[in-house]
Amino acid sequence: MTAPGNKVLIATLNLVTSDLLAPGDIGLSETAWLKLGLQDGAQVELAHPAPLNSLSAVRSKIYGKVLDQKALDSIISDVSLGKFSDIHLSAFLTASAAHSQDASEVLALTRAMVKIGKSLDWSRTPIIDKHCVGGLPGNRTTPIVVAICVAAGLTMPKTSSRAITSPAGTADTMETLAPVELSLAAMRRVVESVGGCIVWGGAVALSPVDDVLIRIERALDIDSDGQLVASVLSKKVAAGSSHLVIDMPVGTTAKVRSKVAADRLGSLFKQVSNELGLNLRVIQTDGSQPVGRGIGPALEARDVLAVLTGSSDRASDLETRAIRLAGELLELGNAARAGEGVGMAADIIASGLAWRAFQSICDAQGGMRVPPIAAHQHPVETHRSGRVASIDNRRLAKAAKLAGAPASKAAGIDLHVSLGSVVEANAPLFTVHAQTHGELSYALEYIQNEAAIISVEEAP
Amino acid sequence: MTAPGNKVLIATLNLVTSDLLAPGDIGLSETAWLKLGLQDGAQVELAHPAPLNSLSAVRSKIYGKVLDQKALDSIISDVSLGKFSDIHLSAFLTASAAHSQDASEVLALTRAMVKIGKSLDWSRTPIIDKHCVGGLPGNRTTPIVVAICVAAGLTMPKTSSRAITSPAGTADTMETLAPVELSLAAMRRVVESVGGCIVWGGAVALSPVDDVLIRIERALDIDSDGQLVASVLSKKVAAGSSHLVIDMPVGTTAKVRSKVAADRLGSLFKQVSNELGLNLRVIQTDGSQPVGRGIGPALEARDVLAVLTGSSDRASDLETRAIRLAGELLELGNAARAGEGVGMAADIIASGLAWRAFQSICDAQGGMRVPPIAAHQHPVETHRSGRVASIDNRRLAKAAKLAGAPASKAAGIDLHVSLGSVVEANAPLFTVHAQTHGELSYALEYIQNEAAIISVEEAP
Repeated sequence: MTAPGNKVLIATLNLVTSDLLAPGDIGLSETAWLKLGLQDGAQVELAHPAPLNSLSAVRSKIYGKVLDQKALDSIISDVSLGKFSDIHLSAFLTASAAHSQDASEVLALTRAMVKIGKSLDWSRTPIIDKHCVGGLPGNRTTPIVVAICVAAGLTMPKTSSRAITSPAGTADTMETLAPVELSLAAMRRVVESVGGCIVWGGAVALSPVDDVLIRIERALDIDSDGQLVASVLSKKVAAGSSHLVIDMPVGTTAKVRSKVAADRLGSLFKQVSNELGLNLRVIQTDGSQPVGRGIGPALEARDVLAVLTGSSDRASDLETRAIRLAGELLELGNAARAGEGVGMAADIIASGLAWRAFQSICDAQGGMRVPPIAAHQHPVETHRSGRVASIDNRRLAKAAKLAGAPASKAAGIDLHVSLGSVVEANAPLFTVHAQTHGELSYALEYIQNEAAIISVEEAP
Repeated sequence: MTAPGNKVLIATLNLVTSDLLAPGDIGLSETAWLKLGLQDGAQVELAHPAPLNSLSAVRSKIYGKVLDQKALDSIISDVSLGKFSDIHLSAFLTASAAHSQDASEVLALTRAMVKIGKSLDWSRTPIIDKHCVGGLPGNRTTPIVVAICVAAGLTMPKTSSRAITSPAGTADTMETLAPVELSLAAMRRVVESVGGCIVWGGAVALSPVDDVLIRIERALDIDSDGQLVASVLSKKVAAGSSHLVIDMPVGTTAKVRSKVAADRLGSLFKQVSNELGLNLRVIQTDGSQPVGRGIGPALEARDVLAVLTGSSDRASDLETRAIRLAGELLELGNAARAGEGVGMAADIIASGLAWRAFQSICDAQGGMRVPPIAAHQHPVETHRSGRVASIDNRRLAKAAKLAGAPASKAAGIDLHVSLGSVVEANAPLFTVHAQTHGELSYALEYIQNEAAIISVEEAP
């Protein structure tokens, strides 16, 4: 449908045989009225949609061809115009995962994704940024790292995504502490006034197809290397970042399962970012167990606050990781000399400067919030006494998702132990949090039917 | 949702806050009422759906694993229960196309598809069958072949599919001549009374997931070797066939583009059918140009009738192909001696016996119909005189689809030339048939924007 001002919409045409509409008249949904910006009585033109030529490129990918810039531009442009159905989106992502994408294709995909979105240009440098490739429940260092770096005077306009296959993304967690759906103009005002932000990337449309693709990847529970690198780097380029630290947790049940896989993914990140002129450092971190205690938006937010306020029961592993990453960024951004970043980051937390910076960011984003607490909480106990020998991140994350996270912000898992903890029989290993009884049962049923998600070995 | 009698339905739960329903009450769609066979006031139980474990198998396939019987059983069973969304169906089919499936996997897939459907057992032998792998517009030999074989006394319970990526499947074409949506019981009555039938396989539920998968393949315009073999053989096994001839047109713009591809596909057909105890013969045929003159359900039906009735303007290429295939089947089914099948088939047509058998089949299926004629017809002319040098099957098929085929039965393309035809400038090469003005324009626009679909070379 073409409306005045050449506005175009792809719609389903339903024929009406009653007298609801006069012959030649057309009715539109609220969404269509808004998108076309129409007045009542306006003239519109109808035609069949043009055949979707970018599907040939999708078929080439299915059969293993490396796609070039032109092919990826046509696919991403059609995706952004809403021309791809779920069937087509799923085929594109599945084919991309099935045939691993080389650096040239990932670079082309990244550029295609940047082209169709808005881009930010900051009239200062450096613009620092961080990203965690995920897969480690509770690894919510971002709000702490941003607070430290902003307190040190660096500029850090952080956009985060919502969960892809995990129980919480940084945007989901941060949303329990402050509004994260800011416009691009509002985001710019926040960064210019306080030096940094932590907002949802989808709302500022820096890489508008990213959330379209993520919805499909979540349904399939896949996240391929090429798609991951393009998704991350397209948002960083569009956000105007110049210096970037990648946190890459490595562990048998993390997203990146081995050193070999981490090196391969890190190398892809470096090849593509070099071509894009991004200064990037990849940090491989321990991915053997969750970070902090909470898994799920509100429970993770609680852990973040404990570290920032220096609470006596704060999770020291979360604090240590945040300090390490912030230290790298302080050095990369020339706020600290080589070797002095970690010490400086620790001082900024201990002095309360990071907590003050975080509050000012929340205030600037629309006001600080108190994370919700779940209506239903149910402890899961160990049957025997001994020492915690292993924790399955994937199944723990799955249980948190079945309990309702991330859609239900208060839902998730609260851990009471970590690797090596000594426990008595019948002591709680973790507590399931859920907002409804149904979701609680759903998670508990999964936990009971699985082999121990946290295994306890008898002490010798 | 679980209803009395352990009937289960997966549904979306919408919460109502108005007084439309009393607390604890639930309303259902018409479809849900029917599926659960409920009475007003019945008690139902609600629970979250169990997590879809077969998705792990789909993910394994994405990453290139060969799936075993157990994995494919779980996928196909979940598909048949409606548990796969379009996203999941598309990922399964895309991954299967991206990593070519070996014979063991295709055999397992075929068996999984047979298991979840009904199967026919005929108390006689042989039960003969044919299948064309498609890709050649207008290649509508099936009704003629069935008529010949039935006239020769063989039993041929033919189930056909609707179009996957073509402008017409045999079921679409046959539907313009007689009802094709018969129940399994009705199909059995037809075959027992007249010796054969030509019905839509989807209606008799011999391979119920097949049409679910075909809907997705059509949207993606892909049809992989493994999926094709499993789709065909699962229906043949379920239909109780013992002897099968495969018509495989080979040509640069047919579905099978080269001798190498044809040999590979033929070998996969043979390996899998051997394991299934099916006696199968693959016939490679000329796929360089369309067969007959019509492309689209009604236009192809017209060509079929012309051959059966011995009309003077019948398409001789269609007749020759049908006789060749019928000849192979007459020999395979022991109705003719080796080398005598083709002659016998020709005699059966010439004598009018095939036409009589075809009429009795149509009558038994519910009564013969007259194919519709399109409201709009528009000739497409050659700009210069000369000789027809090439015909692009794919783009001709696409034009027929844009004109409305197969959903619009009368729509399609009527060819006036074939390879080698000598034409004068401004002579019509083909006529586009469409039921609506919009569809006609849509097809003509495509034809005008493409390089010549039928190329004419000036005589030297």
